[in-house]
Amino acid sequence: MSEPLRIGIAGLGTVGAEVFKQLSINNAYLSQRGGRPLEVTAVSARDRTKDRGVEIADRLWVDSPAAMAASDNVDVVIELIGGSEGVAKEFVEAALDRGKHVVTGNKALVAVHGTDLARRSSANGAAFYYESAVAGGIPIVKALREGLAANQVHRMYGILNGTCNYILTKMDATGQSFEDVLKEAQELGYAEADPSFDVGGIDAAHKICILSAIAFGTEVDFDGIFCEGISTITPLDLSFGREFGYRLKLLAITEKTDDGVLQRVHPAFIKVSAPLADVDDVYNAVVAEGDLVGRTVYEGRGAGAGPTTSAVLADLIDIAQGNLLPMFLKPADELASTKRADMGNRTGTFYLRLQVLDRAGVLAKIAQLLSIEEISIDSMVQRSRNPDSMVSVVLVTHETSEARMSRALSAIADLKEVVAPPCMIRIEEF
Amino acid sequence: MSEPLRIGIAGLGTVGAEVFKQLSINNAYLSQRGGRPLEVTAVSARDRTKDRGVEIADRLWVDSPAAMAASDNVDVVIELIGGSEGVAKEFVEAALDRGKHVVTGNKALVAVHGTDLARRSSANGAAFYYESAVAGGIPIVKALREGLAANQVHRMYGILNGTCNYILTKMDATGQSFEDVLKEAQELGYAEADPSFDVGGIDAAHKICILSAIAFGTEVDFDGIFCEGISTITPLDLSFGREFGYRLKLLAITEKTDDGVLQRVHPAFIKVSAPLADVDDVYNAVVAEGDLVGRTVYEGRGAGAGPTTSAVLADLIDIAQGNLLPMFLKPADELASTKRADMGNRTGTFYLRLQVLDRAGVLAKIAQLLSIEEISIDSMVQRSRNPDSMVSVVLVTHETSEARMSRALSAIADLKEVVAPPCMIRIEEF
Repeated sequence: MSEPLRIGIAGLGTVGAEVFKQLSINNAYLSQRGGRPLEVTAVSARDRTKDRGVEIADRLWVDSPAAMAASDNVDVVIELIGGSEGVAKEFVEAALDRGKHVVTGNKALVAVHGTDLARRSSANGAAFYYESAVAGGIPIVKALREGLAANQVHRMYGILNGTCNYILTKMDATGQSFEDVLKEAQELGYAEADPSFDVGGIDAAHKICILSAIAFGTEVDFDGIFCEGISTITPLDLSFGREFGYRLKLLAITEKTDDGVLQRVHPAFIKVSAPLADVDDVYNAVVAEGDLVGRTVYEGRGAGAGPTTSAVLADLIDIAQGNLLPMFLKPADELASTKRADMGNRTGTFYLRLQVLDRAGVLAKIAQLLSIEEISIDSMVQRSRNPDSMVSVVLVTHETSEARMSRALSAIADLKEVVAPPCMIRIEEF
Repeated sequence: MSEPLRIGIAGLGTVGAEVFKQLSINNAYLSQRGGRPLEVTAVSARDRTKDRGVEIADRLWVDSPAAMAASDNVDVVIELIGGSEGVAKEFVEAALDRGKHVVTGNKALVAVHGTDLARRSSANGAAFYYESAVAGGIPIVKALREGLAANQVHRMYGILNGTCNYILTKMDATGQSFEDVLKEAQELGYAEADPSFDVGGIDAAHKICILSAIAFGTEVDFDGIFCEGISTITPLDLSFGREFGYRLKLLAITEKTDDGVLQRVHPAFIKVSAPLADVDDVYNAVVAEGDLVGRTVYEGRGAGAGPTTSAVLADLIDIAQGNLLPMFLKPADELASTKRADMGNRTGTFYLRLQVLDRAGVLAKIAQLLSIEEISIDSMVQRSRNPDSMVSVVLVTHETSEARMSRALSAIADLKEVVAPPCMIRIEEF
């Protein structure tokens, strides 16, 4: 066998500890897969004393990620610190600048600084691999970058946040409110104490931003993503959606349109027969559509120590094998900047739920405001919810643009008979 | 850019012609992905004059696959001739022996001769890639061999034959007989004139045999596969299955059991909520279960010129990039022979449909024969089908072994009141 691959692990949380453990107990197997010995030569974490369920020899500890990046005893660093700025960023940059390969699960870092990191990776001949940053254990980066390498991909979309998918599945099954299910999810460890990155769609946005750069061979454009979370969704909407034959998912979508790349994250109704409609609980799934291959779907666990470790180790094995590809689709100096499409130009059908006072003429006023924007109604359900004569009016529109819908909604919200902010959910026809 | 990769294509049917076409019209893109120019330098097919929708320069033609294998002008050959013996086998062996890399879509060849080919590949330092041989455009070989490289895979299963899946989907939707739907499928080009490889399960067996070798790092063991096709399935069974909450699929399964590897292909009922229950029409899907990653699912088109070409070109790009891995999981000289598990020891629940004369005491006799084998009944439906007092009795059993079920079925078939061969379908609880 050839020279060992010397590995430094920075960050020993649940994933870091599992990566270390696998590299200890399954070393022979993993080294065989890598074609050379995989040897952990350095570790770094804030607390040396914590019980991580695995013994870590004293000699492996280095004082800081910075010391690891500078070490002559490390060929590849695994960054599991997290966060797009600060320690993680400085560590990864320093490692690349020293010609060390990098494996990371840090989606925020790649989404925000991916272009610069791709250039550093290329300039220093150091690989930058990040399979575990997107969709956990699903090998979607590899599938897209290598398995579908011959295709022009025109659209990708997916369920990329397990926390949101768990919450929506649970709300749908039990009729509980978003707040109640979120609280339960936090108690179960499926949601963070500060859930804003997950439920606000930011985490899914990080991931679709990365997939978009690979799929289209562009610079990452995190700031260009249209993003809405799930916190305003009610069980009532899930139940109305079911009546219309839909399931609600937080979707992350990137597609090439006539006026550029449109990246977006938002709740969406999809038909029960659509590819992702049955992807429930904490599962993630991604659809990649290519010109040759047509539609391909990838599903698996999007988080957790095991799946994430599976992806980290796959990257490590690739690096050990010398399978070193550019970070995104193209060599770093050929990455095009992303031409952003205008979300206002997107067209589609929409679900609207309005809480209105049950008075004569209300529906006529709403229909009139929609017709001013040339929005026609495909179907409508009206149902009394409260004894105080307030009713839920649910509409599904024919195709129209985001800009028109947005203007119509403003006008509708201003009606005095409309007693709560209108709920609008996009319908995706896959 | 480095030296061109010189490519020979043997076999210019639908797929071969599409591969040639893509390498012509998308050459710049594909060469960028491969990191070096991809240049077709030789082609071979039985008929030079056929219109293939793409111009092939005279200078590219060689007289035979054998001449291509011997040529000094070719680095990698693409074998799209087909068949496990004869021309295709001799061609591939000659190419490997000359140190040429091989890309093939020939599942029969790999399933039957894979072990020898892996040794030739290794001995000559020539890669042998076959992504397009399994599940068409789904990059399942790459996902398994690289994406899940760190996992111990304990089970894989899938819908690997699009023809059968189309036929079963259509029978289920329309209530038509197997024979009628097969005829339609042949007219539509979804089934071959001689459909025996597809509907008999042989094609799916070829594919699961290959996946099994990769998943478990063993020699291929095509002869060890238990194989039943779909030709005895009736619309009645599909309809009864639905009543019990099942969908019927032709499944290919390989799993590690206590007494060895059990490879099998047969129709199976799976719950409507199971991962593959919604995979319909010509789509293929594969489930891979690993110790770290848990369950992952891959879905896409399993056949057709576009998807198959996507996989062939991905292999070519890997070879151009120098990403050369052993054919199966391990180096060829470390492949273990497959310890076969005995199908008779498999346990599971079973669906039985018996056509019996509607006489007193028949059910008691059947129950008695089952109880002799200690098989207990979970649920039963009895329904009159014909006016001549023949009834369909449908049973779902509790868990028992294949051997017991087989003995009980023989005894039941011998009852004079049982007027047609019993229909037995395995139920898989995923």
